[in-house]
Amino acid sequence: MNRGTVLATIITIGDELLIGQTIDTNSAWMAQELNKIGIWVHRRIAIGDVWKDIWQSLDEESKLSDIILITGGLGPTADDITKPLLCQYFDGKMVVNEEAEANVRNIFENILKRPLIERNLKQAEVPDVCTVIPNKRGTAPGMWFEKNGKYFVSMPGVPHEMKGMMHYSVLPMLQKKFTMAPIIHRTLLTAGIGESFLAERIQEFEKNLPSNIKLAYLPNYGMVKLRLTTAAYDSRTHIELEALFDILKQQVADVMVVDEDISLQEAVGRLLTTRHQTLGTAESCTGGYIAHLLTSISGSSLYYKGGVVSYANKVKEEILSVEKETLDDKGAVSEETAIEMMKGALQALNTDYAIATTGVMGPTGGTLSKPVGNVWVAVGNSEKVRTHEFHFRFDRQRNIELTANNALNMLRKFIVENS
Amino acid sequence: MNRGTVLATIITIGDELLIGQTIDTNSAWMAQELNKIGIWVHRRIAIGDVWKDIWQSLDEESKLSDIILITGGLGPTADDITKPLLCQYFDGKMVVNEEAEANVRNIFENILKRPLIERNLKQAEVPDVCTVIPNKRGTAPGMWFEKNGKYFVSMPGVPHEMKGMMHYSVLPMLQKKFTMAPIIHRTLLTAGIGESFLAERIQEFEKNLPSNIKLAYLPNYGMVKLRLTTAAYDSRTHIELEALFDILKQQVADVMVVDEDISLQEAVGRLLTTRHQTLGTAESCTGGYIAHLLTSISGSSLYYKGGVVSYANKVKEEILSVEKETLDDKGAVSEETAIEMMKGALQALNTDYAIATTGVMGPTGGTLSKPVGNVWVAVGNSEKVRTHEFHFRFDRQRNIELTANNALNMLRKFIVENS
Repeated sequence: MNRGTVLATIITIGDELLIGQTIDTNSAWMAQELNKIGIWVHRRIAIGDVWKDIWQSLDEESKLSDIILITGGLGPTADDITKPLLCQYFDGKMVVNEEAEANVRNIFENILKRPLIERNLKQAEVPDVCTVIPNKRGTAPGMWFEKNGKYFVSMPGVPHEMKGMMHYSVLPMLQKKFTMAPIIHRTLLTAGIGESFLAERIQEFEKNLPSNIKLAYLPNYGMVKLRLTTAAYDSRTHIELEALFDILKQQVADVMVVDEDISLQEAVGRLLTTRHQTLGTAESCTGGYIAHLLTSISGSSLYYKGGVVSYANKVKEEILSVEKETLDDKGAVSEETAIEMMKGALQALNTDYAIATTGVMGPTGGTLSKPVGNVWVAVGNSEKVRTHEFHFRFDRQRNIELTANNALNMLRKFIVENS
Repeated sequence: MNRGTVLATIITIGDELLIGQTIDTNSAWMAQELNKIGIWVHRRIAIGDVWKDIWQSLDEESKLSDIILITGGLGPTADDITKPLLCQYFDGKMVVNEEAEANVRNIFENILKRPLIERNLKQAEVPDVCTVIPNKRGTAPGMWFEKNGKYFVSMPGVPHEMKGMMHYSVLPMLQKKFTMAPIIHRTLLTAGIGESFLAERIQEFEKNLPSNIKLAYLPNYGMVKLRLTTAAYDSRTHIELEALFDILKQQVADVMVVDEDISLQEAVGRLLTTRHQTLGTAESCTGGYIAHLLTSISGSSLYYKGGVVSYANKVKEEILSVEKETLDDKGAVSEETAIEMMKGALQALNTDYAIATTGVMGPTGGTLSKPVGNVWVAVGNSEKVRTHEFHFRFDRQRNIELTANNALNMLRKFIVENS
């Protein structure tokens, strides 16, 4: 595939990223945004707060890429060395930037309402050889440098500050510098089929793809996304991509959740919104995670009324009206309990549909008859209920995510088939 | 700081990491595990499924590091090119590995209970120049290569498969190859004080640190972790680190949450466990996220009884007994509603403490009097209640996380001061 001619490297700076104390979510977001305007991030480098390592990476990456985006190391503390290093790398000297100083003063006086200290004012100093990128959401300004036809952009590592700068300044500035064909993707989400079986099914399709269109398999927690990608130099490429995407959709129709790059919970939300129907949750083993996934979507209050996290059996009895006998005779992790929880949620939350989960997530709490990973899910409405027993064999976090995704997909199918 | 003499690079392969469709959580975990045995990950590189880019990275990184750990690109589909590339890079030829084949057959026959297809058996082929690393959790075997005194390890990108291999094979194998001083960290968590103010307060401490001990600031959602790091060549270094950590603790005593590298929810869990007390949650704007944080901890059922996600006002009234008049007169986002939710949760869930949240998370739903980011939190027990109003100004996800962390920290302080 022709990945477009404009190549970028993202360099993230900070020991916390290397020793694993922080997970880098910035790079993924940046890559997506750059992609949309036709810039292909072909390398991402994480290095520590080490002078030599940063210097060397700037040298190396500027040989391989047109644009070098740098995040991190701009804080007010002694371990932050990015700014003095960039000043020296580009042969500049430090000067106070008036706009940046006014911004720091404004943040302290009007927003934080705290006294300003010398260290904070240091944030307003920048190398005199850079174009300053305003930071509307924090005190550290961004910096834009040019050298030998390559562009270098330095931004803070704080996600919402970086996002603001990218959105308001960096992306528009890059669009002025380059003429680019946007990279376009068409993505669909499947559930309930493994990557290799999917590949077997669509192998003829894959073999016959033109060289400028690329197919990727993106497996994630019991689901696989299929993505077609191309650089859209003209409208013909658009049409070609759409036609191929249609063929792909037909070939996986029975396992397809949705033909867009949205999450399962967004797909469920759309089904409910279209039907003007509502949903409630009764979660034991998923402990509020399904509620969290649903309420992560802005506007979810239109269809999601609420939920009960019934971790203790008493809560199952008192709020969800699960019978004490059911809990005693069948156990908390049983089909019967899942069904009663589901019905109890419909009643207590007064919704059209409900999801209930109960199981053992591990690593402790398993027994011989109910081992770690044993889960019962019930979904339904006032007329019908559907249940399924799962046996997951992973760690706690993954068991929770798999249960949540499978439960949401069960509900999705139930809605489609019963309305 | 002397970062130990053994240096590693992690290379992650896959377009999905570059275009931002997947967030890389593997590298952080790997870096932590390597750190514990004295290996310093000084570079992390993400590249796409591109032959030339992978080849070039292997060349470059083996100049800079002793160990090159590679994840991804081992799947059964056509976009996975890592294995044939490594075979060529190390001048090998592909052969069937009997142990790996038996593993693939076992997974399909006994676990997945699905027919095996040719493509799956391909997974059992490996270059004849590698040591095979068994994969107990999936079909793709790992591979260990040696060249010019450097070690190369290739593993699948699926997190639990990679973790299994690291744990059972790779870490023990590396420990046999190198004699290393473990890198040790001492970390404490603070809340309610900004990074620059913290730095101001401990600047003398920082200035006087010996050169072999490094201090890092790790800010995250309203909290800052402080971390001291050193390579422990002998027991004297251990003692020195402990003594300095004690001084640091004294200097930040009033803002310190806990003197270990654990999360806020773990710290709250410990307080409750020691006191044999219980907690319940009533969440509106956080939508189950606090419940999820609490139940992410194994063993949390000892102190966490459950929660109500009262997204709709009806649920606030019916399950949490919030007065209709309160909702009508003061609004759902108000101190009064937060207090009634908290008291309702104590009652409905029968717990010693409860947390309640109500607010506008955005981007939609704000009004002039209750703008996006306006949140009320109440924490308390049957005798006392403490409330706080927040004004966050970020995106939905960050507003939810900030609310959750602040609410948990309010509860932590309440428990400490009222028991």
